[in-house]
Amino acid sequence: MITIIGFIAAILTTASFLPQAIKTIKTKDTSGISLMMYILFSAGILLWLVYGIFINDLAVISANAVTFVFALIILFYKLKSPRS
Amino acid sequence: MITIIGFIAAILTTASFLPQAIKTIKTKDTSGISLMMYILFSAGILLWLVYGIFINDLAVISANAVTFVFALIILFYKLKSPRS
Repeated sequence: MITIIGFIAAILTTASFLPQAIKTIKTKDTSGISLMMYILFSAGILLWLVYGIFINDLAVISANAVTFVFALIILFYKLKSPRS
Repeated sequence: MITIIGFIAAILTTASFLPQAIKTIKTKDTSGISLMMYILFSAGILLWLVYGIFINDLAVISANAVTFVFALIILFYKLKSPRS
C-alpha cells in the first residue's frame, strides 16, 4: 500500500510539469513564471538524479530524469524570453 | 556524501517554490502558469506527505509540507484569477 502511494506521488509530481512545459511551448508566456524557481528546481532535480544513480534506484532516476527534461524546457523558454 | 546530496536536492526542490509563490503574490500574473500543473503537483505533494507519515520520515514530511504550502498559494492565485 505504502509503495503504491509513493509510486502515485512520484508519477503525479513528475507528470505535473508536462502541462506546464506544453503551455509554455504553446504560449511562450513566461512572464508569470519565476526564473529563480526553475534555476533552483532544475539544480535540485539534477541532484536527485545524481542521488538516484548513487543509490542505484531506477524509480528515482527515471522520475527525476523526466522531470529534469520538462524543467529545462520551461527554463529555456524563460531564459529565451524573460519579459514575455 | 550521498545523504548530503539528497539533503541538498530536497532543500533546492522545496525552496524553489518560494520565489514562484512570492512572484505570484506580488504580480498576480498567473497567465503563464499551468493550472493543471499545480493541481497535479499539489495532489502529488500531498501523497508524498502521506507517504512520509506512513514511513515516519521527518525529512520527507517536512520538505513536502513546506512545498505543499507554496504550491497551494500558487494554485489559489491561479484559481482566483485564471486569465490574468
